[in-house]
Amino acid sequence: MNIKINELTKEEIVAGDVVMTSEVVPWHFPMMNDTVRNDAYEKALKSALKNGGVVLDIGSGSGLLAMMAARHGATKVTTCEAVSMVAEKAKIIIQRNGFADQIQVINKLSTNLVAGIDFPERADILVTEIFDNGLLGENALVAIEHARKNLLKPNAQLIPCGVKVYAMCIESNEIYKNHRVETISNFDLSPFNQFSLYNYTGYHLAKMDYRELSAIASIFDFDFQKDHENESVPIEFEITESGTCHAVAFWYELQLDHDTIISTAPHLPQLSCWKQAVQLLPRPQALTKGQTFKLTAHHDEESLWFTQG
Amino acid sequence: MNIKINELTKEEIVAGDVVMTSEVVPWHFPMMNDTVRNDAYEKALKSALKNGGVVLDIGSGSGLLAMMAARHGATKVTTCEAVSMVAEKAKIIIQRNGFADQIQVINKLSTNLVAGIDFPERADILVTEIFDNGLLGENALVAIEHARKNLLKPNAQLIPCGVKVYAMCIESNEIYKNHRVETISNFDLSPFNQFSLYNYTGYHLAKMDYRELSAIASIFDFDFQKDHENESVPIEFEITESGTCHAVAFWYELQLDHDTIISTAPHLPQLSCWKQAVQLLPRPQALTKGQTFKLTAHHDEESLWFTQG
Repeated sequence: MNIKINELTKEEIVAGDVVMTSEVVPWHFPMMNDTVRNDAYEKALKSALKNGGVVLDIGSGSGLLAMMAARHGATKVTTCEAVSMVAEKAKIIIQRNGFADQIQVINKLSTNLVAGIDFPERADILVTEIFDNGLLGENALVAIEHARKNLLKPNAQLIPCGVKVYAMCIESNEIYKNHRVETISNFDLSPFNQFSLYNYTGYHLAKMDYRELSAIASIFDFDFQKDHENESVPIEFEITESGTCHAVAFWYELQLDHDTIISTAPHLPQLSCWKQAVQLLPRPQALTKGQTFKLTAHHDEESLWFTQG
Repeated sequence: MNIKINELTKEEIVAGDVVMTSEVVPWHFPMMNDTVRNDAYEKALKSALKNGGVVLDIGSGSGLLAMMAARHGATKVTTCEAVSMVAEKAKIIIQRNGFADQIQVINKLSTNLVAGIDFPERADILVTEIFDNGLLGENALVAIEHARKNLLKPNAQLIPCGVKVYAMCIESNEIYKNHRVETISNFDLSPFNQFSLYNYTGYHLAKMDYRELSAIASIFDFDFQKDHENESVPIEFEITESGTCHAVAFWYELQLDHDTIISTAPHLPQLSCWKQAVQLLPRPQALTKGQTFKLTAHHDEESLWFTQG
């Protein structure tokens, strides 16, 4: 059998001549197509490059941010990408768009780069967009701190320079039923909850059936010019609607520079390529308007999560 | 650090004491919570078991369908589950609900079962729900054919006994931008499309911004009492709205018995645990109201897909 799936044979796909989305994560596409995100990064790069400069881009992807830096006058751009298939594709795209002389693509994690060996000169400007729905899941804190100390000149400009994290309590039977089970058809299926999700998952809340039960609380405020130890911070959610709390939803505002913010908040006029992060409570919690609901927000190098009490 | 994520420490989660959703696929939860699905299966089982009988259940999951069969008078239920962690959990749930004497859980793929060795007696009734969004991705055709020939008595009742597949052409920039990229910020990023999706993915169309461009076409009609060779069938979509066709969406009606159908169609009053399957065209295609758009629908043992022309 040699049937074409689109322009490719099924055998080519199965044989791996086509890269399946399980290997190259599919969020690349909505990310590249997010013009709000793209325009914010381009504005910040253009402003930072008024007088030129050497740029380090962590996380090449398609090469888009590196090409923006080159277009706005970067003397030299070094961009690194850990996934080799993606790094190879970035080289092809950069070549095709005429920026091969200005941009060097390195197939390494940024934390494995050595200034003076992998690339000649520490950078004046860092640009990176390695933030997942839950902010820290792609090791942004580690990568930025390592870059400040090892890959950038003193006083280099960071794009983004910081980020503020927000959260609220929500009721959502729809989300709850995607992750937990109780009594079904009069059978107790609850032992299956051992297989449930115990960290955050991404949802575009605007597409879900949910109610906001609390005011929005400010959770963390990271300045990327500083180092960040693991933290645990008590949070008091002011309950504004009575209901059953199933989850805490959180999102953030990336401060690209003093003028430019990208928000991943739930109620923007246009859906962002980022979803909100949703972490379910251990079990649904009845809340009453006017009360305070106490949680603790935690972060380490690679994750952000909540516990009760 | 030993911070609790819900009731578990982060270390327990990372150490794998908790089964992460990447191992036990998360669709189990919305599936168990789909009362329309559950009630339809229970109705068909109750009807089939009017005079008792031996039941084979392929794909235990939580043990729900096996327990339904036991509750409605099955003499004996054999249920098999390929994922060992899930099979172990099904045993616990069946025990907890008091059906351990009636139900035998076997941690094997059904196609590895041998009647008379793994279980004593061929079954009078097969029940199975191993259908993914695109119908055939969990090898339902292979499993049912194998069961008919090796695990069931002659003239055993199959639940479901057949399935009808439907499709239509849709316009959806939102879906398209989740999987393809063209010129972005004046850079040609199209080489990145090598990493795009070339088979179907699941979407609840009711949650997406999309337009129906064609009438609904009937694609395949499988009778599970028969064997099914690979097929390629020309389909003529009648275009009812002018627009840009990005994809073919398909879904199905599972015929549980003569009285009971489960549909995975896009416009049901309540969202099904199944999403519609969406396969993008190689490139967007302008279509005009009144024209006929010709595709070919294919299936083999494990997949269903479309090609142009």
